[in-house]
Amino acid sequence: MKFPDLPALAEPGLATRVQHALDHKTKPLGALGRIEVLALQLALIQGVERPALREPQLVVYAADHGLSRRGVSAYPREVTPQMVTNMLAGGAAVSVLARQQGLALSIADCGVDAPLAVGAVDLRIAAGTADASAGAAMRSDQAQQALRNGLALVERLPGNALLLGEMGIANTSSASLLMQRFTGLPLADCVGRGTGLDDAGLARKLAILGDALAANASARAPLEIAAALGGFEIVTMAGSIIAAAAQRRVVVVDGFITTAAVALAEALRPGVLAACVFAHRSAEGPHARWLRHLDARPLLDLDLRLGEGTGAALAWPLLTAACALLADMASFDSAGVSNRT
Amino acid sequence: MKFPDLPALAEPGLATRVQHALDHKTKPLGALGRIEVLALQLALIQGVERPALREPQLVVYAADHGLSRRGVSAYPREVTPQMVTNMLAGGAAVSVLARQQGLALSIADCGVDAPLAVGAVDLRIAAGTADASAGAAMRSDQAQQALRNGLALVERLPGNALLLGEMGIANTSSASLLMQRFTGLPLADCVGRGTGLDDAGLARKLAILGDALAANASARAPLEIAAALGGFEIVTMAGSIIAAAAQRRVVVVDGFITTAAVALAEALRPGVLAACVFAHRSAEGPHARWLRHLDARPLLDLDLRLGEGTGAALAWPLLTAACALLADMASFDSAGVSNRT
Repeated sequence: MKFPDLPALAEPGLATRVQHALDHKTKPLGALGRIEVLALQLALIQGVERPALREPQLVVYAADHGLSRRGVSAYPREVTPQMVTNMLAGGAAVSVLARQQGLALSIADCGVDAPLAVGAVDLRIAAGTADASAGAAMRSDQAQQALRNGLALVERLPGNALLLGEMGIANTSSASLLMQRFTGLPLADCVGRGTGLDDAGLARKLAILGDALAANASARAPLEIAAALGGFEIVTMAGSIIAAAAQRRVVVVDGFITTAAVALAEALRPGVLAACVFAHRSAEGPHARWLRHLDARPLLDLDLRLGEGTGAALAWPLLTAACALLADMASFDSAGVSNRT
Repeated sequence: MKFPDLPALAEPGLATRVQHALDHKTKPLGALGRIEVLALQLALIQGVERPALREPQLVVYAADHGLSRRGVSAYPREVTPQMVTNMLAGGAAVSVLARQQGLALSIADCGVDAPLAVGAVDLRIAAGTADASAGAAMRSDQAQQALRNGLALVERLPGNALLLGEMGIANTSSASLLMQRFTGLPLADCVGRGTGLDDAGLARKLAILGDALAANASARAPLEIAAALGGFEIVTMAGSIIAAAAQRRVVVVDGFITTAAVALAEALRPGVLAACVFAHRSAEGPHARWLRHLDARPLLDLDLRLGEGTGAALAWPLLTAACALLADMASFDSAGVSNRT
């Protein structure tokens, strides 16, 4: 399948000019720390000296998983459609935060096991994936369709920033499986407690995910691996990430599951990582390890493990602040402030 | 000197009720991590089940220091009034962030060595402190006046949240000295590079601060220590912190220098710490150690070391998000979402 081209690398002078502007703002050199690094990244993503963010889109990619029938989650399967309804009604955490931060919120149904909710975007592939512990979670054509859906969704959205969210009971299982295959780390290093498993639940999850790896050992290419281990929301999101990076949109990555989509997108189209701002380090155990593996340094570390895009929404004001500081701070010259002696 | 009483502790049932509300929101138990802890703290500060923040005030306390004439900073003394002017003109980092976050910004001149800038609040004690390496930085009556000024300033400000900022060349020196006296740690563990000293500059700063401790070894009571080691902005800020805590205002602490003011306020009026939200862990070396000593866990860790209140302003959206989530998220019951199995 053909993916859109990523933008050419920014011309070398751009980074130098942006860094020069940052270094001459009225503050000690480097004193805004990670915010300066972020401002430079946003400039390079947009390919301009003064990045500006407009009409940010938070998309929650929702789907069900065959694995949820195997008892890998502390919550029952029906919570996926219930939470989709809650998000659309404005009562979910991500709804509250999107409203507060001025983020347009869309819920993309990528394959929820319930009728399409009123107000959701119809990107449905099927009513949940198959049970990955007994074979592939989806067929190859389903995986390709999910990717295309994700690409097309971004084409339709306004603005220049995509904030990633997700909902799907058992989707930490799918993300753990993808992490194992993409990083090569031992499975136990890739599995966490999800929405709150106890020790027995965690052991059970680990055993079932071991079965899933064994049942899908022949998958080799990135999209084969994704089809084998699911889920629809992760593959759809990967398509959106590729489209967003191709269009110089800023991609704000939330937690563990959205990181799985980023890793898949990067495997399919190397270079998309440059468009990604990692919002936070999740309390889901393996997330910190995966971020290190991707050489990604997240902005926030607040013990969040909710998903939905809540971490991305909470980090959003740091992005707008970085742009404002780069655009609006005075320089030593313009403000008549003495520089260091 | 008489300080206002702190509010009575919240009745024991309040924390239980707020925690119950958080635990029944549509999310896995504890999944919003530090944001839930923050929401509970804000409720307890305000003494209500649904805390709400209104008319937040960011105050930059500015003053000069006798120590700045001794070469303890990478920047010259005249930068203090220049930056005050820059803040009032809207070009400083704190000006940009305050504008963006909807924070009312006041610049309180507590003793800048220049004529009062147009637009600054006149809380001037003198044109900078005396050289603490040769004796007390201020007289006892000056310290008391600074405290009273800080108390009175908050009485005049609207709203229920005070964000702390500061400006004063050499004020990391004053903060380091206060840290040494209040924590008892070795001086070397209390001193950092400030606005960017090199190794030789750091060694010089350490030697001069050692002189200051020796010259003021007889100071014992908290306000004596503050008068001995300065500065006017730190003592004034301590007065404001006490007033804010007494009025159930939320105090948002910025970096190293504002932490010195909090430590002084806590020494003068034990209990004010409960009103303090620590915005960030500064890249100024000793700040992390002081936060641990105060058992304070900051929200952000972004390698900031600018001061001015920039960290407080960057953390502010997390406070408003915590209030919104507590107020507006649906419960499992209200949203008809199944709870864990």
